[in-house]
Amino acid sequence: MKQTKLSVAIKATLLGTAIASAPAAFASEKDILDTLKANGTISQAQYDELYEKASDSVTVSTKGGHLKFKSGDAKFQLGGRLMADYAAISDDRNLDGDGSEFRRARLFVKGQIFNDWGFKAQYDFAENDVVAKDLYIAYDGFDSTSIKVGNHFMPSGLEAQTSSKYITFMERSTIQDVFAVGRKNGVSVATHGDNWTLHGGLHMQDVSNDNDGRDEDYGYGVRATFAPITGKTQAVHLGASYSHQEFDDNGTERFRARPEIHTINTRPFDTKIDGVESTDNYGLEAAAVMGPFSLQTEYFAKEVETANGDFDLDGWYAYGSYFLTGESRSYKGSKGVFGRVKPKSVVGKGGIGAWELGVRYSSIDLYDGLATVPGINTAGEEGEVLTIGVNWYATPTIRFMANYVQSTVEHTGTLLADEDIDAFQVRAQIDF
Amino acid sequence: MKQTKLSVAIKATLLGTAIASAPAAFASEKDILDTLKANGTISQAQYDELYEKASDSVTVSTKGGHLKFKSGDAKFQLGGRLMADYAAISDDRNLDGDGSEFRRARLFVKGQIFNDWGFKAQYDFAENDVVAKDLYIAYDGFDSTSIKVGNHFMPSGLEAQTSSKYITFMERSTIQDVFAVGRKNGVSVATHGDNWTLHGGLHMQDVSNDNDGRDEDYGYGVRATFAPITGKTQAVHLGASYSHQEFDDNGTERFRARPEIHTINTRPFDTKIDGVESTDNYGLEAAAVMGPFSLQTEYFAKEVETANGDFDLDGWYAYGSYFLTGESRSYKGSKGVFGRVKPKSVVGKGGIGAWELGVRYSSIDLYDGLATVPGINTAGEEGEVLTIGVNWYATPTIRFMANYVQSTVEHTGTLLADEDIDAFQVRAQIDF
Amino acid sequence: MKQTKLSVAIKATLLGTAIASAPAAFASEKDILDTLKANGTISQAQYDELYEKASDSVTVSTKGGHLKFKSGDAKFQLGGRLMADYAAISDDRNLDGDGSEFRRARLFVKGQIFNDWGFKAQYDFAENDVVAKDLYIAYDGFDSTSIKVGNHFMPSGLEAQTSSKYITFMERSTIQDVFAVGRKNGVSVATHGDNWTLHGGLHMQDVSNDNDGRDEDYGYGVRATFAPITGKTQAVHLGASYSHQEFDDNGTERFRARPEIHTINTRPFDTKIDGVESTDNYGLEAAAVMGPFSLQTEYFAKEVETANGDFDLDGWYAYGSYFLTGESRSYKGSKGVFGRVKPKSVVGKGGIGAWELGVRYSSIDLYDGLATVPGINTAGEEGEVLTIGVNWYATPTIRFMANYVQSTVEHTGTLLADEDIDAFQVRAQIDF
Repeated sequence: MKQTKLSVAIKATLLGTAIASAPAAFASEKDILDTLKANGTISQAQYDELYEKASDSVTVSTKGGHLKFKSGDAKFQLGGRLMADYAAISDDRNLDGDGSEFRRARLFVKGQIFNDWGFKAQYDFAENDVVAKDLYIAYDGFDSTSIKVGNHFMPSGLEAQTSSKYITFMERSTIQDVFAVGRKNGVSVATHGDNWTLHGGLHMQDVSNDNDGRDEDYGYGVRATFAPITGKTQAVHLGASYSHQEFDDNGTERFRARPEIHTINTRPFDTKIDGVESTDNYGLEAAAVMGPFSLQTEYFAKEVETANGDFDLDGWYAYGSYFLTGESRSYKGSKGVFGRVKPKSVVGKGGIGAWELGVRYSSIDLYDGLATVPGINTAGEEGEVLTIGVNWYATPTIRFMANYVQSTVEHTGTLLADEDIDAFQVRAQIDF
Repeated sequence: MKQTKLSVAIKATLLGTAIASAPAAFASEKDILDTLKANGTISQAQYDELYEKASDSVTVSTKGGHLKFKSGDAKFQLGGRLMADYAAISDDRNLDGDGSEFRRARLFVKGQIFNDWGFKAQYDFAENDVVAKDLYIAYDGFDSTSIKVGNHFMPSGLEAQTSSKYITFMERSTIQDVFAVGRKNGVSVATHGDNWTLHGGLHMQDVSNDNDGRDEDYGYGVRATFAPITGKTQAVHLGASYSHQEFDDNGTERFRARPEIHTINTRPFDTKIDGVESTDNYGLEAAAVMGPFSLQTEYFAKEVETANGDFDLDGWYAYGSYFLTGESRSYKGSKGVFGRVKPKSVVGKGGIGAWELGVRYSSIDLYDGLATVPGINTAGEEGEVLTIGVNWYATPTIRFMANYVQSTVEHTGTLLADEDIDAFQVRAQIDF
Repeated sequence: MKQTKLSVAIKATLLGTAIASAPAAFASEKDILDTLKANGTISQAQYDELYEKASDSVTVSTKGGHLKFKSGDAKFQLGGRLMADYAAISDDRNLDGDGSEFRRARLFVKGQIFNDWGFKAQYDFAENDVVAKDLYIAYDGFDSTSIKVGNHFMPSGLEAQTSSKYITFMERSTIQDVFAVGRKNGVSVATHGDNWTLHGGLHMQDVSNDNDGRDEDYGYGVRATFAPITGKTQAVHLGASYSHQEFDDNGTERFRARPEIHTINTRPFDTKIDGVESTDNYGLEAAAVMGPFSLQTEYFAKEVETANGDFDLDGWYAYGSYFLTGESRSYKGSKGVFGRVKPKSVVGKGGIGAWELGVRYSSIDLYDGLATVPGINTAGEEGEVLTIGVNWYATPTIRFMANYVQSTVEHTGTLLADEDIDAFQVRAQIDF
């Protein structure tokens, strides 16, 4: 038996496949072969030959609620996510009313082929529209480094890079609408160690053909993260990012944000600036996990370069979360983001899921004394948002969220009265 | 051998998996193990261990033309449907002409994960649009009961609840356009026995964010069905449904229907009513299967509550169908709907498929003496539709349909002359 | 052993399945059974029974970067393609500027079920739109013959019928925009031998319901190809096609083309003709493969029948390509098209991929002395396009392309000055 296991281990190493992680179908055939070999039914030579052939098999897995396929040199996954939101909104203006929407409804196919090449095709069909999300080809042939071309996340901050499947509140903080870069069509290179990441990218705009006799806008950026501590229940994260965006037509740009409520159709934080040539974004990020408790904060500043001089916008948020059921937020030091929370006990397998409480404060300042210069800035809002949330992770892939949001919009630029927008909103979420 | 089979049966029960229905791959490995055990090549203990591991495998099935994946605690299916229609229309007005369209073109992923949780993500892309169909998360942890949240069928009548894959004629009866509830974004609870069902739901509108400073419309409903007889070739179905719809803005609502022809762009049965506050819908349904012969009928009444008083609309249909090749329509007593017809012989496996003839009469009355109140009702149509159909089920999932439709629109409200619209239409259909 | 192999071969023939091409999972179980049989562990009878059961299994394959499923009577594939384009354009007019777009972003499910029935559902989501591509049901029960109904390629020329995954340059020649038929919603019958094909079709327009009180336009066509030589590295292809298009409203039709650059939004070759009743298209095609070198050419003529007489448009292209790494373009004599180039060595498996150089000249003439008849023709362009290209096939399914395009638009009809449009454009492409 020992020799057999050794021979298997050597083969596994040669094949570049850890047997421990081999999917079920192959593992099952391998077990039959192991038994037959141990019983002397088949010879070592026969075992070796059959083992090699069996390891060519494609194994199918539904583990964790995901449909995956894996062979010696290729992987495929078919998946998606659904988020159904229901909200009751009260407001000083006319945003009142109960509403519902599918916040996200995505399907994707992703894969790794010919060992070194990855791809992902992901679309969002929520609101009966088509919106391209990840659409890229990746080359992963260098150690710990991935080169991507196509539509994908450009370097940006911690909350922006963390998947919407895993964010702590129903909406990312209001400042992300103005300061995060998000997905763009371009090229990026990402490299990492166990506890650090470095990601640089150069991009055009989105997936559409926008050519109308002028150059499409472009930009570039970089992000670096470092984790002095990176464990399953204890972690400290530090990060910084910079990005630049060039505007070819030097026209009017709007810097707009929703108050962490998405079921309203307007973005009440709304500043227009004329003659914008380019912007520079600076971000700082920090987070800590201490068992069931975690903290996270980010600060952003944006310098808007115009023909009439430069203007400074900024914002920040901070939040804490606590798992009543003892789980920890899942920090990935080699990716510089947070990942999936796996409840200690699962509803459907005799458990109660994971329960998490959170509170977040966000502050946004889109006012830089601009209103006094006619035609330059027609809004100039400041504001703050407080969100209190409860999350129930029934299974690793199914989550129910409830958020109470209290926001204040200060129309500093226009000298209008302040405006309060409050909402109670709930979400049912699955990813597969 | 007997002991082995017993031990397998006990294990199967413990694992909660009926071996009879186990997919092919696992079944095949199990057969090899059974043989090796019977030959004395492996011991009972080895058999037991290998059996348990093999049963963890994901098994893939293409049975019946569907791609399915199944493991111990999860199931996935990737599928869709295509319906290509071609029609020749003659009309007293200006709807003349030959036309074609894809009536439905859908893709879906559905699954059951962590034992008790279901989901489905289904979109229709016909006509180069995106239309959300089933987008829901389900909890199935209670016996014979399913709780769904998201976009899905709210309680409504028999023809409305029966999948478009299985309806007897190319279009549902004309009254469904006005009286059926269809899919809405909300919550519903469905419970059932072998021969009865009970389904209640509460819903907002569709998947979009429609908030515009007022409450989104909402509604609720319930449906109950009972089958005194429920067999493979003999069945009697009885059912009743009620639903209520609230309109927040008390505006003008249109109650419109096509005459069982979908390739025309207008809906000639068209009644407008002003100041609509709410509607109440009442439905009665009955059906019977007697071997190759079946009957089905439904009656609907709608009470429209307005500031100017209440108005009553109603309609009904009845149809019979007969299988020349001896099949029976497939009634599902535990679901209160009709399901897939499986031809006795399949084209592609030496057979000729199933052949079915059907005839349906529909009557719709959207006129309640309203035309005499100026501004309240600008149309007020009545009418009737006769459809004669032939269906060829080449395989369980591929069907070709031909319908001759003769409809009369009586413009009672506007005192215009009656209008005849006839069509000969054919469909090629597959679901996968 | 010999007897076993013979028995297997016979069974394989009876089952209609070539064992050589059986997917991995089944093949792997078969190997175990072969070994057990050879060792005398199981009897011939047991072997036969287990073999038959194992062959019912669904086998999953990721070979060649494609996800496929296969059982005894069914096949499924889930796939798609991504093409990300980046271009720099210089122009005499106002098409200047750098641009990017996703040229294609498709997902599909296709299958073969109940032995004789095929289907495909393929959509393109590039530019955040939904565009139906292949949506058809096929009957393949006759030898070497396929009958398709739904949206699919109608008979047309060589470059038009060759998949965009395999075309030599980033865009098909400019004449295809005007002369190729493409996908239409209808019925077609295709039959073939090893070195010839015959394809006839009858079609309505696209997948939408366009009925507006008149007949939808229709057309028909036929294509025949013959290959005197058809080998892996040597081939000669000859073909001819004819198609007819009827226009019901006898209105104004535009015959428009891009200059082999897709990132511009206009189609500068643009001829309008009034009162068009019908068109007839004639195409001739020839190609040759001589090891790494290949040639391809097509000529098209279109007769436009109008109330004011007939007008003749025509165009042609010719190109050569050469593989620096020794591969040959892959001609399929039984399909009359070119297929996938498989590089001799693959990046990710120790290789460098395949490298190909190509040059193409296209000429288009949409001018027939029409400008002198007022109101009949408002443009009347002629022109030519030269494209020089380099392709790097990193793997069989991943390709990077660079094209330099130089085009001249002669506004003969309007007597405007000639216009030069040049572009350097690159593409990253994957299909899965």
